[in-house]
Amino acid sequence: MAPRYAPSLRSRLAPILLILQAAFIIIAALCFENRQTKKPDSESFLNLYPEFQDVNVIVILGFGFLCTFPVRYGFSGCGFNLLVAVLATQWALILNGIDSWYNTRIIGIDLKSIITAELCAVSALISIGSVLGKTNPVQLTLIALLEVTGFVLNKWLLQTLLKVRPANSIMLLHVFGALFGLMLTWILSRNAQEQGYEKEKFDKKSGLFSMLGAVFLWMFWPSFNSVLADDQARLGAVCSTYLALAVSVVTAAALAVLSSPRGTLNPIQMQSCILAGGVAVGVSISVIQQPWEAMALGLAAAAISATGFRYLQTHMLTAFECHDTCTVLSTHGLPGLLGWLAQLVLQIKDCDDHTVAIRFAVFHICVLFVTVSLSLCMGILTAFLLKLNFWRQPQNNKCFEDQAFWEVLIHMPLRNK
Amino acid sequence: MAPRYAPSLRSRLAPILLILQAAFIIIAALCFENRQTKKPDSESFLNLYPEFQDVNVIVILGFGFLCTFPVRYGFSGCGFNLLVAVLATQWALILNGIDSWYNTRIIGIDLKSIITAELCAVSALISIGSVLGKTNPVQLTLIALLEVTGFVLNKWLLQTLLKVRPANSIMLLHVFGALFGLMLTWILSRNAQEQGYEKEKFDKKSGLFSMLGAVFLWMFWPSFNSVLADDQARLGAVCSTYLALAVSVVTAAALAVLSSPRGTLNPIQMQSCILAGGVAVGVSISVIQQPWEAMALGLAAAAISATGFRYLQTHMLTAFECHDTCTVLSTHGLPGLLGWLAQLVLQIKDCDDHTVAIRFAVFHICVLFVTVSLSLCMGILTAFLLKLNFWRQPQNNKCFEDQAFWEVLIHMPLRNK
Amino acid sequence: MAPRYAPSLRSRLAPILLILQAAFIIIAALCFENRQTKKPDSESFLNLYPEFQDVNVIVILGFGFLCTFPVRYGFSGCGFNLLVAVLATQWALILNGIDSWYNTRIIGIDLKSIITAELCAVSALISIGSVLGKTNPVQLTLIALLEVTGFVLNKWLLQTLLKVRPANSIMLLHVFGALFGLMLTWILSRNAQEQGYEKEKFDKKSGLFSMLGAVFLWMFWPSFNSVLADDQARLGAVCSTYLALAVSVVTAAALAVLSSPRGTLNPIQMQSCILAGGVAVGVSISVIQQPWEAMALGLAAAAISATGFRYLQTHMLTAFECHDTCTVLSTHGLPGLLGWLAQLVLQIKDCDDHTVAIRFAVFHICVLFVTVSLSLCMGILTAFLLKLNFWRQPQNNKCFEDQAFWEVLIHMPLRNK
Repeated sequence: MAPRYAPSLRSRLAPILLILQAAFIIIAALCFENRQTKKPDSESFLNLYPEFQDVNVIVILGFGFLCTFPVRYGFSGCGFNLLVAVLATQWALILNGIDSWYNTRIIGIDLKSIITAELCAVSALISIGSVLGKTNPVQLTLIALLEVTGFVLNKWLLQTLLKVRPANSIMLLHVFGALFGLMLTWILSRNAQEQGYEKEKFDKKSGLFSMLGAVFLWMFWPSFNSVLADDQARLGAVCSTYLALAVSVVTAAALAVLSSPRGTLNPIQMQSCILAGGVAVGVSISVIQQPWEAMALGLAAAAISATGFRYLQTHMLTAFECHDTCTVLSTHGLPGLLGWLAQLVLQIKDCDDHTVAIRFAVFHICVLFVTVSLSLCMGILTAFLLKLNFWRQPQNNKCFEDQAFWEVLIHMPLRNK
Repeated sequence: MAPRYAPSLRSRLAPILLILQAAFIIIAALCFENRQTKKPDSESFLNLYPEFQDVNVIVILGFGFLCTFPVRYGFSGCGFNLLVAVLATQWALILNGIDSWYNTRIIGIDLKSIITAELCAVSALISIGSVLGKTNPVQLTLIALLEVTGFVLNKWLLQTLLKVRPANSIMLLHVFGALFGLMLTWILSRNAQEQGYEKEKFDKKSGLFSMLGAVFLWMFWPSFNSVLADDQARLGAVCSTYLALAVSVVTAAALAVLSSPRGTLNPIQMQSCILAGGVAVGVSISVIQQPWEAMALGLAAAAISATGFRYLQTHMLTAFECHDTCTVLSTHGLPGLLGWLAQLVLQIKDCDDHTVAIRFAVFHICVLFVTVSLSLCMGILTAFLLKLNFWRQPQNNKCFEDQAFWEVLIHMPLRNK
Repeated sequence: MAPRYAPSLRSRLAPILLILQAAFIIIAALCFENRQTKKPDSESFLNLYPEFQDVNVIVILGFGFLCTFPVRYGFSGCGFNLLVAVLATQWALILNGIDSWYNTRIIGIDLKSIITAELCAVSALISIGSVLGKTNPVQLTLIALLEVTGFVLNKWLLQTLLKVRPANSIMLLHVFGALFGLMLTWILSRNAQEQGYEKEKFDKKSGLFSMLGAVFLWMFWPSFNSVLADDQARLGAVCSTYLALAVSVVTAAALAVLSSPRGTLNPIQMQSCILAGGVAVGVSISVIQQPWEAMALGLAAAAISATGFRYLQTHMLTAFECHDTCTVLSTHGLPGLLGWLAQLVLQIKDCDDHTVAIRFAVFHICVLFVTVSLSLCMGILTAFLLKLNFWRQPQNNKCFEDQAFWEVLIHMPLRNK
């Protein structure tokens, strides 16, 4: 708790945040326009408002409290998630509007555009999960900005070059975020792997908070998947997602027991695997027709995720020295890829014509190729930028420690300051 | 934490879960059909979606975190609740569809059917509250399956033989679940009553989590009661439930103070009594017309529930050796019966004709009689099945202990596994 | 934990609560009438229901868990908040209906009237924040009743004398509640300031619960600001509030780092400052047209709030002996006044005519003058009433202590009672 503990905050974080925020407000003053004031009907309000709130709950509460599982890192997990989410959302709001600004010199702001921006911000939140505890908030801010830039660029490429539908391109955020995050953690924390992080622990006290975050993600995931769907597809998306999530819970519990050496359940494993079905169904939501398809996909996703958590994570650490705090590869990456594969298979199955099927397969592989290469490149680029000493990355023995950034024991009111 | 600690999990739980889940998916592949894809209007989405989410919150978060109050049993309370809820919902989805499958060979799946299935699952969650901490997850799985079977059978009997409206028959879940649970715990844990459970404790750390669950149940209970009502009755149901819940809080606080020997408030008593008004109004929702009726019912329900918690629970333990962990009798059973009585009185009060009144009374008593006898029979049957040594019920000194089922202290990542 | 610990509860709290509740039910039986049963359309349900739930979450969960930050005062913070909220809501429901009762002898109850009553109750919850931990529940009950009376009187004066629109007059609840609370704490706890409260501490365990409350307030604040707006203005209100809140988070983080002597973040400061933007925008919601106005207001509000938290709070304590537990002055008071000022400036800016502008300014200053003087007077009056020995205010060394009111360690079931 000595003053030298957080040199990065005062001289780096505060000015960067103030400058960024001032810049965002100036851009808003020049370009943003409230688009709602012109439509006096209440239909659009009802149509979007409940889902907007649900997405909000997923982004702020779900991801935030999911990150509270390291026992000494609760405030940072949840507080920095909020900070990064609002920065990334504002930045995505600006980037998403560049197209419209180019044509009309105005960026219209309404609930729909805020929801889209929040979904773009989620890709950054996923990446941050992989470096959680090993970075300072200045680095997290930079990751948010660069990742959102990359993701919006990817979305624009897919929509312009390959004519992918917006909802489909945005749902690739799981794959984009997970691979981006893996590159980050691979480059940023290579040297630390031998001795590990002494403070990276999980226990009962912090466990129920992250359980709370996971439960909120689980409950509101149907909104996450349905919010971008067309009106007539929304109810189907909600039902499919719910069924896939339900199957994931059962499968995750069974596999957690089978894969554990002591035959017990691992809370962190459960927290990430119960969501796998939702991720996989989200990526392939446009082609899922029948309930059993969603349920089978939920089972497969949870199986991959549970296996990845138990075996792949250790393997990655020993073989590649890649330390993935929130196991974003198993939680978002693999189920996302599975969803992509399911979309391919289901779409081809419905094709009568061979030529169309092959053409679709090529197109679909191109989509994945663009996304993967862009996320890997941007991830590596961002990681090398963050490795600069200028950003003062925390030393290994101070990782996973709230005290570096927060006053954790306070006598109120602040008398002797 | 020795390997022999949870013999039930690996050899029993995992295969049962996998077989059940595979069976559900096969049934889904053969019978389920997505009913939404045919209606392209957004009306039905708006109509049900917000309430679907609220019911979800009640089922997963509310009941889950309410069960975290035993101080060493947080993960199990909340994790097993999730597992049981999704299993019971899938099973109820199938059972509820048998009728339609018999006619058309198809079970239509839409938001409405998922909501109904979740409500059926709630009856299982209530029963599980009474054996919380004294059973293993295999037993909980079986309870869920058998209880949902019994509840759907009861619903079918009431609707077919007695022409009870669906909403009314489902709302008897409180009475059905509470009595079923009482039979379970009475037979399952008779021998344990003399020395008690050493680990059954409640303290501050776990207390706020169960307070959180109770508060969520309290906040979203209006949705629970209104979700099955007709369109024109829904707003009335929401208002009545809210008023009854508000009165319950005040009454519960007053009676908790009066009935405690030290004159202090008991958090667990508060958590169960503030919900009593919602339960009673839920059962009698179809006949409540005026706000004051709901408020008076809320007061009476909280009074019964608070008294039951303080005096009946100890009495049941000493006289009948019946150990009711979550006091489901006072929380759901008694207020549910009170609601049934209120429905009788209010309905008869409105009758001008004596013959009609008597006929209604007979009908109404039959409804209760069927429900009570079926729940008692199914409960006893299930309890004897669960008493088999095959299921390896936890020994008394290992009850209320997360370590039997969960890894509670984890150094991440899982290095030496 | 000795029996003499809470003399106030049994002989004061229980009878007062029972009498109040009985009186409310009698009034309801005489005057309340369910207004919904006459409108059979589902439009009005959809229109209000999701926002009703959000307001409920803000009132019960948000304010309740925000008050759990004192480390030994979690149950009281959250439990008494619930008690006060439901009492204040019922009382506000009656007071708000006096007008209609005077004309028609009937008070119509529907979702809209319950929402309005809950908003009136929020003014009481804000005031209670300033005396949190230093009062007993009997005193809190009286505060709730008197404050709601004052607030409804203020609303009636503004609407009748000055023709202020209902939504605008209700949104002054932040200013009214904060000033009322300041008067309370100033008079009630003067003598205690020299030695401070030994048990007023904050640490990690309680910190995440209050973080949870703050995050819920943050997420659902858009509903709070939009619920009273006209149909066509609601979407705009939601977007403006979201943007202001987002900017507040970034600004609060930057200023917390800059103003802390060690350069670290203070969790309690963050929790109150991230909400400042929502408060300021709420007060001026009717005149905010463009996104940048909301964002700039969010920045200014967070800046004022963060500065107030760090410097004003200590100053008030040493200079005026005024101990403000939840810093309601910085969280609600100052941002509320800023919102009032913003409304004045934005409204005048749009005026072409000087006479109109001056007339509006005079009118607007009158509105504030009435609100401020009424809240100060009612606050002082209430405080002197509460200072009577009859209410048995807790002694200083028993403040901020759950054990005075709750059984915090319980062996279940309650055997030896």
